Parts: sequence; C-alpha cells; structure tokens
Amino acid sequence: MSDILPSWNDGKTKETIINYVQSVTDPNQAAFVPVKDRIATFDNDGCCWNEKPAYIQLFFSLARLKQMAADDPTLRGKPHFRAAYEGDMDYFAQLDPHAGGDVQDLLQVIFDSHAGMTQDEFEAMVREFMNTARHPHFDVPFKQLVYQPMVELIHYLHDNDFKVFLCSAGGMTFMRSVAEDVYSIPKERVIGSNISFNTEMTDDGPVVVRKPGLVEPIDDGPGKPINIELHIGRKPVLAGGNSDGDLHMLWLAQTGSYPSLSLLVHHDDAEREYEYDIGSEKTLKMAPERGWTVVSMKNDWKTIFAWQ
Amino acid sequence: MSDILPSWNDGKTKETIINYVQSVTDPNQAAFVPVKDRIATFDNDGCCWNEKPAYIQLFFSLARLKQMAADDPTLRGKPHFRAAYEGDMDYFAQLDPHAGGDVQDLLQVIFDSHAGMTQDEFEAMVREFMNTARHPHFDVPFKQLVYQPMVELIHYLHDNDFKVFLCSAGGMTFMRSVAEDVYSIPKERVIGSNISFNTEMTDDGPVVVRKPGLVEPIDDGPGKPINIELHIGRKPVLAGGNSDGDLHMLWLAQTGSYPSLSLLVHHDDAEREYEYDIGSEKTLKMAPERGWTVVSMKNDWKTIFAWQ
Repeated sequence: MSDILPSWNDGKTKETIINYVQSVTDPNQAAFVPVKDRIATFDNDGCCWNEKPAYIQLFFSLARLKQMAADDPTLRGKPHFRAAYEGDMDYFAQLDPHAGGDVQDLLQVIFDSHAGMTQDEFEAMVREFMNTARHPHFDVPFKQLVYQPMVELIHYLHDNDFKVFLCSAGGMTFMRSVAEDVYSIPKERVIGSNISFNTEMTDDGPVVVRKPGLVEPIDDGPGKPINIELHIGRKPVLAGGNSDGDLHMLWLAQTGSYPSLSLLVHHDDAEREYEYDIGSEKTLKMAPERGWTVVSMKNDWKTIFAWQ
Repeated sequence: MSDILPSWNDGKTKETIINYVQSVTDPNQAAFVPVKDRIATFDNDGCCWNEKPAYIQLFFSLARLKQMAADDPTLRGKPHFRAAYEGDMDYFAQLDPHAGGDVQDLLQVIFDSHAGMTQDEFEAMVREFMNTARHPHFDVPFKQLVYQPMVELIHYLHDNDFKVFLCSAGGMTFMRSVAEDVYSIPKERVIGSNISFNTEMTDDGPVVVRKPGLVEPIDDGPGKPINIELHIGRKPVLAGGNSDGDLHMLWLAQTGSYPSLSLLVHHDDAEREYEYDIGSEKTLKMAPERGWTVVSMKNDWKTIFAWQ
C-alpha cells in the first residue's frame, strides 16, 4: 500500500480513499461495483489544478485580449480589453462568479478571447499558452499547476478500471487541449462549458468553428448532473470537487445504487498554495452532514505540485 | 481472414474494410493511426438497425401515446394521440423529415411521449418496449432488428482498439437504453438528439428529469460534426451512414490528417429488408465523387438479421 498515492500523507483521508477503491473492486465484497459503473467525475479548477489568484483560463483570456488590444488600439475602449492591455489582474479576478462576479461580464471576456476561429486553431493557441506562459505567483508554466496528488488519484483509479471524467465549469476545449497530457484523461472524458459551435461547409468539407454564444447549461452547480447525463449517461460513484459549484455533483454520486465516495478538496494551505473558503461555504457546511470526505491540502497532501 | 466479418460476403466491400483496418493498425505502414485517434462513428437508424416502415423510436412513441390516449380519452382530440390510438402507422411514417415530414410535428410526438419522467424511468420504459414489443412487418422483438454485419463490424473495430461511437439523429437516451446490450457500445459513446434535461433538487438529492424542449443542434446533417466535437473532440477516421443526414459526418472523416474510410449503407434489398433511396439521394450521388464505399445490403451482406 505504500506505493499507492505516494504524494498523500498517511492518515484517515488516504485510508478512506484506498479502502473505498479496494472494496468496490473486490468481487467478494457487497460493495463491489461492476467495471461499467465505475465512473469517477472530478471538477478541474481548484480540484485538479490551481485556480488562484484567478482561473488559469482567465490568464489565457487576458493574454489573448492583450495581444488583440496591442494589434488594434480601438479595442482598448472596452474595459476588459483595456484591463488586459494594462495587465490589471484584479479586473479579471473579480469576474469569478463564485466570488460574486457577474456571469455576463465573464462571458464577454470568454467570447472575445475564445471565439472566431476553428477548433484546431483554438487548441493550438491553448497548448502554446499552457506550455510557455508562466503563472504570476508560482513562476512556472501553467501546465505545471496540476495537483500531483490528484494526478496520482486519477492514475490509481485508471489502474482499477474506473472511467475518470473531468466535469468542470471551465471551457471544454480549453481543458481537452491539455488533459491527455497532464492527467492521462482522453478528450471524450472531459466535460465542460462551451461556447457555440457551427458547422461551416467549405470546398474541403465541414469545418467546426467557434462562435460567440453559450451552450446551456454552464457546467456548474445544477448544470453538472445534466452534463453528466448528456456525456456519460451514468451517475458517478466517486466525485471530487472544491466549491459550491460542485455541490450537486458531490451529492449526485450518493443517489445511485452503489456505495459512493464524495471528496471535497479544501484550500487550507496558505504557505504552499492558497487558503480560501469563499465560494465553498455551502459545500463545506454540507460535507459533514452528508458524509463527504474533506481533503485538507495542508495535512493530507505531502506534495501539492510535482516541482515543489 | 475467413473468421473476420462472417456475415459479410467476400468481395470488394469486405476487402476494402479489412484492408483499411489492417493498414491503420499496422505500425509499419504509413497509414498507421495511433490508438487514441482510432475513432469510428456510425449512424444508427438505417445504418445499424432497421428504420422502415418507420423509425423504431416512432413505434415506441406510438405505443406510449396509445397507452396515454387509452388512459385519458380527452387526449384523442389531438391528431398524433388519435393516430396512435387508432393504430394509424401512416401518420407516423410521414413524420420522417428525410421523407419530407415536418420537424415540428415530429418533435411534438417526441415531447409528448418522451418527457415528463426521470431518466431512470424513461430508460426502463424503453428497455421494456425493445424487449417485448414486436415489429409489425418482421414480427420479432424490436431489439432483434439490429443488422448483424454491423454488429460484427463494431466488434471487429473494438478488437482493433477503435473507440466506436453511435452518432445518430435518434434520441440519445433511447439508444443508450439498449446500445450496450445489442452493440457492446457503452452509453458514453452514444451520441444522439436530446430533449431538455433539468436538475430538480429533492430531499434525496439531485434528480435529472426530462422536459419538453429541444437541445440544439439535432444530431443530424451539420449537427453531427458539432456533436462529435462536443462528445469526442476528435474527427472520426471511419464513419458509416445511410442517408443525407450523414453526409457531413461521412465527409468529416476525410478532413483529418489520417487515412479514412467512409461507408454508405445502401438499402437495396427489397426481399430481406427494404429497398429505398428516398432521403439518401445527395449522399448516394456524392459517394463516388468523394470515394466513399457503398455497402450493398443485397450483395455485401450474407445475413441481415441474426435470426433470418
């Protein structure tokens, strides 16, 4: 067992996870879950990778809006282009809906930075950004801001024949551009929010292009069970999240016919990462009431980032 | 090779399929496709299972509307409930949009027969129907109307590490209720059209319920590349269809960077199944222009249904 989840400290949380996986994969136990029903769903921002001082995807938006505003000065008349051009990170941080931001303001930033190109072009932009741009606080490429204990947990679940999905409010294509590389999660198992797609018929055949517009529902809160139904068609038996946007998903795992495990990652490590409960108040309150396992980043994780 | 695709007659079509699969799975050939990119997408109605004299899902709708109209006579004032109650199959057959039907009329039938229950309840209804109701022409349970050669092709692709998806205009949950059973295709690899879902919060947690309303786009024609992007995030290298609703998907397979195979199932067997080109005219015309392989049900298939 010492080889399992090496970046997790020994203790009750690690024991709970390993006991759960061992019991549901043991055909001699009542808790056994058939392979086809071993579905795990994880939130991404703040659960599998860092989300402070702002979502990684917002840093991407900022970089792209900044480039656009540099190329076209007339764009600087708009607040989000101006903030990007001037490097005003506070403007972007306050867009987070979980921190009281206005969803419409956030969407405008997303539309202006994420639409107007093909899927192939957008994915290339995201990969370039994730591999080369650096986080302002940690000063490493953004791709290195995945939580090592969660990567190990995903691999551990794969080794036990779980199908592991990301189910996050973040952009689906944004996550898919790097999810195989950083988590070993194939694209079709990444569920997220989407701007509109359109099929344009060209002389070379159909091309999918990105348009300003929102695919309902956003993959957050009550939207998560809907998107899980659309993309998986089964309830997860294991779910992980970190905010009130994950409340429905964490509870959904308990509504099936199998034993379940709901994990709530708690950002309580101001030294190695960030310490905040904002946007997670309801979920933190509900965790003990519903038997969810709270993961303390400070106490349960030996390592947070692989490079630390 | 004689063990491969036993329900396919020897000949150019079978040879084309086997040669394609062998070349893209051979790491020593230039045509090699890495496992992660071995994506196959098949239409369902008319490609993997029978669709005449009407879509199987329409027979389900008819059975359900008939039951509802029997329980509540006031419903019989509406044409679709009356047609169902009186067993007027012609009414339902003419709803097919590929045969010139009005999409809105079809949607009303779908909404009234497919909404107003939970996902779990709906799936149980579909399974009951598929296992017990009998097709008016073939007089076997509907579940037995899958094309045996296509089942074998799906298994052959699975054996060669392809991920096989259904991508059909039919209802996603309707197909998922039986796809694992009849095709060995897991639910998350079934893409279809959807009515609206809503997450209702109950004392027992979130429940996904079915509501009248359409999720755009319908998974047909230009909607297929969009839904393939949403559900897979990769272009297929092998695509199969049978109607003009598959034209975009069949061409999409040719827009990637790998060698591709596009299969067009042609209904030319009036004796063992049905003979019709209606709704497939554009695609049949395009097949030789774009190098698509036309599968003759009459000449290429030794067996159509396993029980024949």
